Amino acid sequence: MSEFARVDLDRARRCGRPETIFCAGKLPSEVVAIAGQLRAAGQAVLATRADEAHFEAVAGVYPEAVWHGRARCITIGACEPSRAKFSVGVVCAGTADLPVADEAAVTLEAFGQRVERVTDVGVAGLHRLLGEVDRLRACGVLVVVAGMEGTLPSVVAGLVDRPLVAVPTSVGYGANLGGISALLGMLTSCGSRVTVVNIDNGFGAACAADAILRLTVEAAG
Amino acid sequence: MSEFARVDLDRARRCGRPETIFCAGKLPSEVVAIAGQLRAAGQAVLATRADEAHFEAVAGVYPEAVWHGRARCITIGACEPSRAKFSVGVVCAGTADLPVADEAAVTLEAFGQRVERVTDVGVAGLHRLLGEVDRLRACGVLVVVAGMEGTLPSVVAGLVDRPLVAVPTSVGYGANLGGISALLGMLTSCGSRVTVVNIDNGFGAACAADAILRLTVEAAG
Amino acid sequence: MSEFARVDLDRARRCGRPETIFCAGKLPSEVVAIAGQLRAAGQAVLATRADEAHFEAVAGVYPEAVWHGRARCITIGACEPSRAKFSVGVVCAGTADLPVADEAAVTLEAFGQRVERVTDVGVAGLHRLLGEVDRLRACGVLVVVAGMEGTLPSVVAGLVDRPLVAVPTSVGYGANLGGISALLGMLTSCGSRVTVVNIDNGFGAACAADAILRLTVEAAG
Amino acid sequence: MSEFARVDLDRARRCGRPETIFCAGKLPSEVVAIAGQLRAAGQAVLATRADEAHFEAVAGVYPEAVWHGRARCITIGACEPSRAKFSVGVVCAGTADLPVADEAAVTLEAFGQRVERVTDVGVAGLHRLLGEVDRLRACGVLVVVAGMEGTLPSVVAGLVDRPLVAVPTSVGYGANLGGISALLGMLTSCGSRVTVVNIDNGFGAACAADAILRLTVEAAG
Amino acid sequence: MSEFARVDLDRARRCGRPETIFCAGKLPSEVVAIAGQLRAAGQAVLATRADEAHFEAVAGVYPEAVWHGRARCITIGACEPSRAKFSVGVVCAGTADLPVADEAAVTLEAFGQRVERVTDVGVAGLHRLLGEVDRLRACGVLVVVAGMEGTLPSVVAGLVDRPLVAVPTSVGYGANLGGISALLGMLTSCGSRVTVVNIDNGFGAACAADAILRLTVEAAG
Amino acid sequence: MSEFARVDLDRARRCGRPETIFCAGKLPSEVVAIAGQLRAAGQAVLATRADEAHFEAVAGVYPEAVWHGRARCITIGACEPSRAKFSVGVVCAGTADLPVADEAAVTLEAFGQRVERVTDVGVAGLHRLLGEVDRLRACGVLVVVAGMEGTLPSVVAGLVDRPLVAVPTSVGYGANLGGISALLGMLTSCGSRVTVVNIDNGFGAACAADAILRLTVEAAG
Amino acid sequence: MSEFARVDLDRARRCGRPETIFCAGKLPSEVVAIAGQLRAAGQAVLATRADEAHFEAVAGVYPEAVWHGRARCITIGACEPSRAKFSVGVVCAGTADLPVADEAAVTLEAFGQRVERVTDVGVAGLHRLLGEVDRLRACGVLVVVAGMEGTLPSVVAGLVDRPLVAVPTSVGYGANLGGISALLGMLTSCGSRVTVVNIDNGFGAACAADAILRLTVEAAG
Amino acid sequence: MSEFARVDLDRARRCGRPETIFCAGKLPSEVVAIAGQLRAAGQAVLATRADEAHFEAVAGVYPEAVWHGRARCITIGACEPSRAKFSVGVVCAGTADLPVADEAAVTLEAFGQRVERVTDVGVAGLHRLLGEVDRLRACGVLVVVAGMEGTLPSVVAGLVDRPLVAVPTSVGYGANLGGISALLGMLTSCGSRVTVVNIDNGFGAACAADAILRLTVEAAG
Repeated sequence: MSEFARVDLDRARRCGRPETIFCAGKLPSEVVAIAGQLRAAGQAVLATRADEAHFEAVAGVYPEAVWHGRARCITIGACEPSRAKFSVGVVCAGTADLPVADEAAVTLEAFGQRVERVTDVGVAGLHRLLGEVDRLRACGVLVVVAGMEGTLPSVVAGLVDRPLVAVPTSVGYGANLGGISALLGMLTSCGSRVTVVNIDNGFGAACAADAILRLTVEAAG
Repeated sequence: MSEFARVDLDRARRCGRPETIFCAGKLPSEVVAIAGQLRAAGQAVLATRADEAHFEAVAGVYPEAVWHGRARCITIGACEPSRAKFSVGVVCAGTADLPVADEAAVTLEAFGQRVERVTDVGVAGLHRLLGEVDRLRACGVLVVVAGMEGTLPSVVAGLVDRPLVAVPTSVGYGANLGGISALLGMLTSCGSRVTVVNIDNGFGAACAADAILRLTVEAAG
Repeated sequence: MSEFARVDLDRARRCGRPETIFCAGKLPSEVVAIAGQLRAAGQAVLATRADEAHFEAVAGVYPEAVWHGRARCITIGACEPSRAKFSVGVVCAGTADLPVADEAAVTLEAFGQRVERVTDVGVAGLHRLLGEVDRLRACGVLVVVAGMEGTLPSVVAGLVDRPLVAVPTSVGYGANLGGISALLGMLTSCGSRVTVVNIDNGFGAACAADAILRLTVEAAG
Repeated sequence: MSEFARVDLDRARRCGRPETIFCAGKLPSEVVAIAGQLRAAGQAVLATRADEAHFEAVAGVYPEAVWHGRARCITIGACEPSRAKFSVGVVCAGTADLPVADEAAVTLEAFGQRVERVTDVGVAGLHRLLGEVDRLRACGVLVVVAGMEGTLPSVVAGLVDRPLVAVPTSVGYGANLGGISALLGMLTSCGSRVTVVNIDNGFGAACAADAILRLTVEAAG
Repeated sequence: MSEFARVDLDRARRCGRPETIFCAGKLPSEVVAIAGQLRAAGQAVLATRADEAHFEAVAGVYPEAVWHGRARCITIGACEPSRAKFSVGVVCAGTADLPVADEAAVTLEAFGQRVERVTDVGVAGLHRLLGEVDRLRACGVLVVVAGMEGTLPSVVAGLVDRPLVAVPTSVGYGANLGGISALLGMLTSCGSRVTVVNIDNGFGAACAADAILRLTVEAAG
Repeated sequence: MSEFARVDLDRARRCGRPETIFCAGKLPSEVVAIAGQLRAAGQAVLATRADEAHFEAVAGVYPEAVWHGRARCITIGACEPSRAKFSVGVVCAGTADLPVADEAAVTLEAFGQRVERVTDVGVAGLHRLLGEVDRLRACGVLVVVAGMEGTLPSVVAGLVDRPLVAVPTSVGYGANLGGISALLGMLTSCGSRVTVVNIDNGFGAACAADAILRLTVEAAG
Repeated sequence: MSEFARVDLDRARRCGRPETIFCAGKLPSEVVAIAGQLRAAGQAVLATRADEAHFEAVAGVYPEAVWHGRARCITIGACEPSRAKFSVGVVCAGTADLPVADEAAVTLEAFGQRVERVTDVGVAGLHRLLGEVDRLRACGVLVVVAGMEGTLPSVVAGLVDRPLVAVPTSVGYGANLGGISALLGMLTSCGSRVTVVNIDNGFGAACAADAILRLTVEAAG
Repeated sequence: MSEFARVDLDRARRCGRPETIFCAGKLPSEVVAIAGQLRAAGQAVLATRADEAHFEAVAGVYPEAVWHGRARCITIGACEPSRAKFSVGVVCAGTADLPVADEAAVTLEAFGQRVERVTDVGVAGLHRLLGEVDRLRACGVLVVVAGMEGTLPSVVAGLVDRPLVAVPTSVGYGANLGGISALLGMLTSCGSRVTVVNIDNGFGAACAADAILRLTVEAAG
């Protein structure tokens, strides 16, 4: 077994999702080695926070690896499609928030969930958002990504009565404080049902949404 | 209609949950008036962040009102029992966190959900927590309440593969910073599936858990 | 002249507004003395951040003094009505923000401006706000008061194309940080035209709105 | 329509100002595409937070594009001149604050407003500022830009009785905290009529000043 | 010797100033005991951060003790008058800052220095300050006390070329952050020669000013 | 003697440990010069926070120097082996924390202590940690290194009754705040016996553990 | 068993120290009940953060209970005297820090350790501290308590080569930030061997010192 | 006159010190132009926060310019030697703080003051500092520079009874917070007579020390 990480090969068996490789701070060779253990165990691979050097090293060994550039993710294969009745709406206020929204969407798809993307619906142009309400209400869970003041989750929660995971992003400057303002805004949101994950943590929001949908499958079973 | 709040009488009809009265900063007479509007519309009442003066005013008019002292909540009636297959586990590290855990539990019961309480299972005595794992795994969603360094949600998420809503509390002193330390710890938790609500916001965590269970009902329908 | 404050009796003559007495930290007798200087100069009096002891001391000498309890203001007389074509919309998300909105409104009326109040239009119930858009668009300037995550000004700025002064309030708990979260959210607001004053500073927002309307009078002159 | 941003072509028609392109985080090709949509609709273009790569890409397609290097702005054409009676004074404490002051000035001119520049009038050399008071009083609105401790807006507000928008800058070091000190100083300013925008947000201050002057035009109409 | 504090009776002999008793957190009986040791050694007494209970206990034993209520200081006797050629200007922006300015002034007088008080010269009314410049320039050292955004020291330093000790006060609200804003503003002041002490630390500023004047005496000797 | 640092050659004689060279901010030539003084006095050398340029300069003069790349340490020789009965357990939650854990381990070995490494035992996979409890209980002191929310020391302290020094790391992002979250979490840890050192300060933790073991030697002597 | 806390009666048997009752937030009756369980198991009782109401309730049932007022601790009995060769030095900078130093000392004595108290040795009067160095060097471990800027542990660590646990206190005002300044100062201390516990946590420092001395007993065994 | 800065040529005449050029954020050509105005007026030049590009540009025109690399200062000529009886002690805890101490020393020498350098006297090796006390007591003013926890000024102030200006530096890591810890420590220092300037502001400390010595000259005159 690799000396730098005890890979949890049982996780996919236990809970239906592959172990994810968090690439930040890992050498390309380390990422390749962990991917190899997962592949040897017949599992799909999802690697987040990757850069192109990680991808090139992985693709050198596994040519079927896919590079999701804006999301900074590598995937090899995917889980079986979820039997969940609902998809996850991944909502995003501005173009600058797309990398985080993409990380959430790539993760959900790697986990076998269906994703509905709704993009560029910031509160400054409220009519755009109102035009998407029906599409949002058809989703089972919402992942709402927003930087700057992080208003969007509050507004969406007022319009759509679903579990909503808010993701603050570090997009912005000055009083944005690297995403802290968006984070605080979401935490103090008047809209109940809103829960929050760490700044830029599209992956974590996807995990939470995935866990909710898997519960619905179990409940429906 | 009351001049100080436009009560949203349609909410219960629309989404199955009563409008909640947030008592902090409201006069007892204002709380009574809002409760009156809800009762007139045939709805249950849940009032949070109440103090005894609020309760006495409400109980003067509605003798059937119930006072949940440690939770600081008033209830009159409750929603119909949920048809959800799962209960919500409300987990709590120390006795000092009980008021927040109670707020979550009272809210969930007012919304018609079943609650499983697990108390005094801090990480300092890990054997206590390990002894409760089976009971936790039987729940559909977990609300995990913790003050001080807020470690408990991470540990529980490593043991139980369910959606988990973490609630930091303001219990502690010094570097606890009024709950900020617990909040930051939960946000940066290595355990995916963990989402977070505001400090001491047992009510918000309950709303999120309730929304998840109602989705399972809809999915199973 | 009083030893504890050099009252600027020329201000009203110079700029059309009375000197305002900031009562916090002043003895009732000091407030009475300053009010006396203003009255002796034939000016109206506006005292902010007053408590009942301040009011009783002032009313003992000037029975015509008016107590605006929720706004914590004392007024004696008022300026001449403004010749401005527009009124100021004072908008407020929740009942808990009313004291700050009231301070803004009392100040504006003491300065002779007309005020349009719009109350309880938080983003959690967006339909209420959308129902008030016409009334808001008829105003010349908007003062938008909000606590918690401070979302309201962004949303209003997306709907109404007017100068907008945002006032964060200290209403909230936990990650609200005494109003800092609302403040940061407003500062990073995506909605341009939004400018911000200090937490709970309804008076300052009123001064800014008043200055804008007086400029319109001068421009129209 | 571009897939990365729903350009709001109606804005110029609705409110007299062109949609602005915020370049930070956008690819040069994305900026060119949005500019193209605006030009196709017959509108002027203002792009802020641009770098030279953005400009070169835009100028390759629109040779008439102008590069405002210190302001980091690109303009193509401009709005019709405003009919406002007053100009906007853009005031600045030190040479290091010029980029932010320039962003405000370029924005105002792109919106058709007249700008009066007053530069290098910090409080350390108060005589320089006092020598400019008459010029400042002739303006209708003031945009005052300052870094370090952000004293200048307070002092100017004590000298000139006009609406004043303060812009903190990130210029400084140490206890300046990247502009937070200047921001806090301006927010707590004793000078009423002072409102504040985000750190380095010369664009936002210009929008607020523009909205005030357009109101004066409407009032005078 | 008292068990709760080793009083440094040599300090007055060594450096010309009495040991000062910081009363906050001390029992009245403890303050009396320390004062007794100082009196027994023939020294003057200065006690700061005292409340009335401290004073009453001291005055019960030493009827000649003087209570400086607004400064919250007790004095018994004073040092010999300083032979310094200059006095210390103690400058203060608003009435709310008087307690801190008084603490500085009482301390300086207890140390034998001459004090020039200049009060209510905030930057919002700059003409008042400009009218006092000659009096300020006649002082050898300036102690400038200011709350809110703490602008005053920067402005004074631009007008008067003397060593200047700035004292931020906790007066204010909201973004004032209990004096942190004023502190940061003073630290980042563009005016060189400005040095800063802790929030509300009028005593420390007085010690620094006293040390400077005693150096001038030694230099002139 | 070098002009840039007075090397304390007596320390090794006095207390059994060599003077350590903190390389950050020092030129390679300065590090070589200090190492030369230590070698001339017959002492071992430990240099921390070194980069490769430091190592190459040192190795050019002392070919026996050893480069510990991940720990960023240089050693030449080592102290005599400690006579301590116990080893130090150096525990680490994730691969990203290895550089800090390595700095602690290299330092301890340079000081002559025995080290037991336990790696990749984060709380997300609690079974891994539980499998190492016996090995941890055999150690005399534990150095527990963790980033993100810093949960690990609390959990280990609940399992192993030994002095425990917690080291927060700057590994993480967003609400991690560069290690502040982990630091605060460890400080507020419910597990008594936990003491904390600065973020990323593996060296300081090693010094504390070394001092404890040397005390046990003295006690047993 | 009590419903509000699962008392860990095995701890004393397992590790030689009684379970400690943290009274803050507990009712007097709850404290009495937990004390009863401990007494029934034949154990000593230590209750920290108690107030007089807690003590009176306990003393009503256990007249042998002792009230340590300044330390805010209750004890009933004590552990057997430690066989450790060394005592613990509890060092304290000013009289205001005595409550925290007392909490450490009472805890250590309840755990059976010997305590050496050194009081009022702040760095402002360095000669006092230098006069106590021999007494400090005779101790095996030092607990150094300091508020304000928290300098004392650094200085003591430079003089005495022993494990040193630093305890910041919340004593101070303004930039002290409720103890945060002292905490940060201690964490960044240049003196190696210094480890830190939470603000005002005399109990935690005592636990760490106790664990170190018990290790020396085991090593010597 | 240059368009980018109104150089204050009267300052040297008025107050005996040259105008200083703060180079950060200025182009080399701008620095040359300002230097030219100063030289044309017959004044000495001091430029701080310069880099080598600034120096090379200046030296191309003024070959007599001197580059103080570690201090990042350029000087051309100097003021006349001060007639002050005392020198300024510039004290520094570690080698990493030398750049800031050098900036203070270069500034003082450019202003004509005599400087006494005392280096590498941190509190971890107290005996080194105690060996320098006589040299420190011979100075009239002390500038004490320290990073990390910033302990040195407190200790020096306890040993030497002179005005003392403390300069925190950004040297350190982790809980050092870029110098904030040292800054807070110095502000809360128990040692009276300590005043503080901004992080890394050696120049400001030198200005304050210079102003004190010039006052002693005026007093002695």
